[in-house]
Amino acid sequence: MSEVLTKAINAKNASVRLSSLSTAVKDSALEAMAEALEDRMELILAENRKDIDAAIAAGRPKAFVDRLTLNEKRVQAMATGLRQIRALPDPIGEVISGWVRPNGLEIVQRRVPMGVVGIIYESRPNVTADGIGLCIKTSNCVVLRGGSEALNSNRAIAGIMAEAAYGAGVPEGAIQLISNTDRGSVIELMQLSGIIDVLIPRGGAGLIKTVVENSKVPVIETGEGNCHVYVDGECDPDMAVNIVVNAKTQRPGVCNAAEKLLIDKKAASQLLPVIAEQLRNRGVELRGCPEAEKLIDGLIPASEEDWGTEYLDMVMAIKVVDGVEEAISHIQKYGTRHSEAIVTSNYNKGQKFIQEVDAAAVYVNASTRFTDGFEYGFGAEIGISTQKLHARGPMGLKELTTIKYVILGNGQIRE
Amino acid sequence: MSEVLTKAINAKNASVRLSSLSTAVKDSALEAMAEALEDRMELILAENRKDIDAAIAAGRPKAFVDRLTLNEKRVQAMATGLRQIRALPDPIGEVISGWVRPNGLEIVQRRVPMGVVGIIYESRPNVTADGIGLCIKTSNCVVLRGGSEALNSNRAIAGIMAEAAYGAGVPEGAIQLISNTDRGSVIELMQLSGIIDVLIPRGGAGLIKTVVENSKVPVIETGEGNCHVYVDGECDPDMAVNIVVNAKTQRPGVCNAAEKLLIDKKAASQLLPVIAEQLRNRGVELRGCPEAEKLIDGLIPASEEDWGTEYLDMVMAIKVVDGVEEAISHIQKYGTRHSEAIVTSNYNKGQKFIQEVDAAAVYVNASTRFTDGFEYGFGAEIGISTQKLHARGPMGLKELTTIKYVILGNGQIRE
Repeated sequence: MSEVLTKAINAKNASVRLSSLSTAVKDSALEAMAEALEDRMELILAENRKDIDAAIAAGRPKAFVDRLTLNEKRVQAMATGLRQIRALPDPIGEVISGWVRPNGLEIVQRRVPMGVVGIIYESRPNVTADGIGLCIKTSNCVVLRGGSEALNSNRAIAGIMAEAAYGAGVPEGAIQLISNTDRGSVIELMQLSGIIDVLIPRGGAGLIKTVVENSKVPVIETGEGNCHVYVDGECDPDMAVNIVVNAKTQRPGVCNAAEKLLIDKKAASQLLPVIAEQLRNRGVELRGCPEAEKLIDGLIPASEEDWGTEYLDMVMAIKVVDGVEEAISHIQKYGTRHSEAIVTSNYNKGQKFIQEVDAAAVYVNASTRFTDGFEYGFGAEIGISTQKLHARGPMGLKELTTIKYVILGNGQIRE
Repeated sequence: MSEVLTKAINAKNASVRLSSLSTAVKDSALEAMAEALEDRMELILAENRKDIDAAIAAGRPKAFVDRLTLNEKRVQAMATGLRQIRALPDPIGEVISGWVRPNGLEIVQRRVPMGVVGIIYESRPNVTADGIGLCIKTSNCVVLRGGSEALNSNRAIAGIMAEAAYGAGVPEGAIQLISNTDRGSVIELMQLSGIIDVLIPRGGAGLIKTVVENSKVPVIETGEGNCHVYVDGECDPDMAVNIVVNAKTQRPGVCNAAEKLLIDKKAASQLLPVIAEQLRNRGVELRGCPEAEKLIDGLIPASEEDWGTEYLDMVMAIKVVDGVEEAISHIQKYGTRHSEAIVTSNYNKGQKFIQEVDAAAVYVNASTRFTDGFEYGFGAEIGISTQKLHARGPMGLKELTTIKYVILGNGQIRE
């Protein structure tokens, strides 16, 4: 049997016992895992050093090496993250609803674990600690398949955490890390329906697309964000400038950063030069439509491809539109259904935008950067779903659970 | 452009307008559709006659012709079904939860339509009416792809209903029926991610498996039920007999019918002969393990294949087990995570069964036949989900919806 299949079956076999573990045991395991990461800091950093050296030797770009790099502060942050997860309420066992039928059947909808969660990710070793913590809290076994470049780091982290968790009462086998980092191991994971209950790809658009399109196991798609800010002709100009600048520049490399500015032609001549200057002062490269070119010196013409691109970089494309209707049509055509914002002081336009824009999160007079499990108050985040099934928008602990109907009778049969 | 793509895009284009249609307009459209089916009964039956004649000429089995056949009573039942859907509360727009963040952001989780729902089904023309009604009620556009054998019937039903719905204010294009019944049209539908938001296959296990394994569009799997009744050594014997007989024989061709009887060895010698006689009196063919063979004359030995088979017929396989633990292990190995029942008077065994059996519906002292949207009180049923993502167990109107976060601010930016 292959490594992937063996480990997935081991996880499956542990899942029944994990599903009935008490909150107290799970929480003590989370604390034990946090302490173990702190206690074994040196080993983790030494193993991580091997990955860093290999990445540098392979000529990987600086941003890549940075994502891969651990230091004391980052390992400490992983431990702190586990303690934050520990402090959250346990979602398992919650009675979501319940009722009695006329025939006396008592029906209860109860929150239960998924069973076995597969996480496929790339070079960031903190996903290993994060994924284990979130799964143990939700009584899910976890099969981790990280990138080859972080294998030494991931092995150290997962090994230390599994040992601590098992010592605290988590059933052996609940935490599995796949050492085979060939593409074949991802393909194999995608076939394991009936063993793995859900797959969560975390990483670049290419990885996510591959998994979504090819997996036989249900997938939660996390995602791509080609997010827009639409500045309406009726708006507070300072608010508009602040929101556009924040949405674009506060952290440009993440999915909820704005990539496009749509501006009402009624506001463009007054506002666009101000916004452009502010963005350029922060180092943003501006591209745009012919109308925008008339108002901004040296604007790079935007191509058709620009409108559909998630830059994840200090680049923004600007389009002058004829009011909220055209803004909505443009977003429907090019948006990725992630986060979309309108800046307006007009009630009806705000309502229209909320109603008609099809996205996980629709903002009126706020930055798109708030689409985030922590900013929404969930206390943890698995990712941001851009699909409509199961979960949409920031996913907290509940999104790692499913339900079970429990029906209590006293001999009822169907007539 | 192909028929499938053209019609899917037409549906997508209608989806924004449909999403903001009022409950009153949707409900009047449901009534108009019900009336139209009644008024045009003759045309529907004449078109259905063509399908029936072709099926008979092709030598199709009686059960197949029966599923295909419409008569006045069945068309009337379709109209009644639409009026029942009309009478249900509109789930769209419901605020599921909402809160204010410390920075003043108001976050609301609002229930919204999926957008475009694709339904792939086989020979039962009533799925056409049902699917259209459920989708219109939930503000979803619908793309129907029924089986070739029912094409004339489906065209008549969908055509009449679309005309009535559009006349009542539903945006044109919201209801689409694919005439191309080649396998290629199913394959094409499965590629349309970004246009079709969810695919629901309804029909035999082969169809469902094909769609689940190959679709790039998210799928809700409805399903196969290899359901068990476990009769514990501590139980009310009459209750045990009644539940087993009901679960097996009340309607053997459906997914929530029991296919397997597991019986505690402590109860087998006393109860098994009684149960076997009752089942045989109703025409059930019995198969079983060697232990069961000792207690039932003429029992057909059950093969390994039997334990995993959903018969959908008057056949039941019986296994004598050593208590609740072995029953649970057997169910975990062979069950399809649909509906599982225990008959027991022992509190701890009931709790253990509820906790450890991984299924959409777990019953204590009641028949598995209750797993059904109507029996659960949902008033409508899209199908019974055997997956864990999005929906599990009987699906009502809510399962055809997703959520959208609406965030109202007054200039908030992220620090």
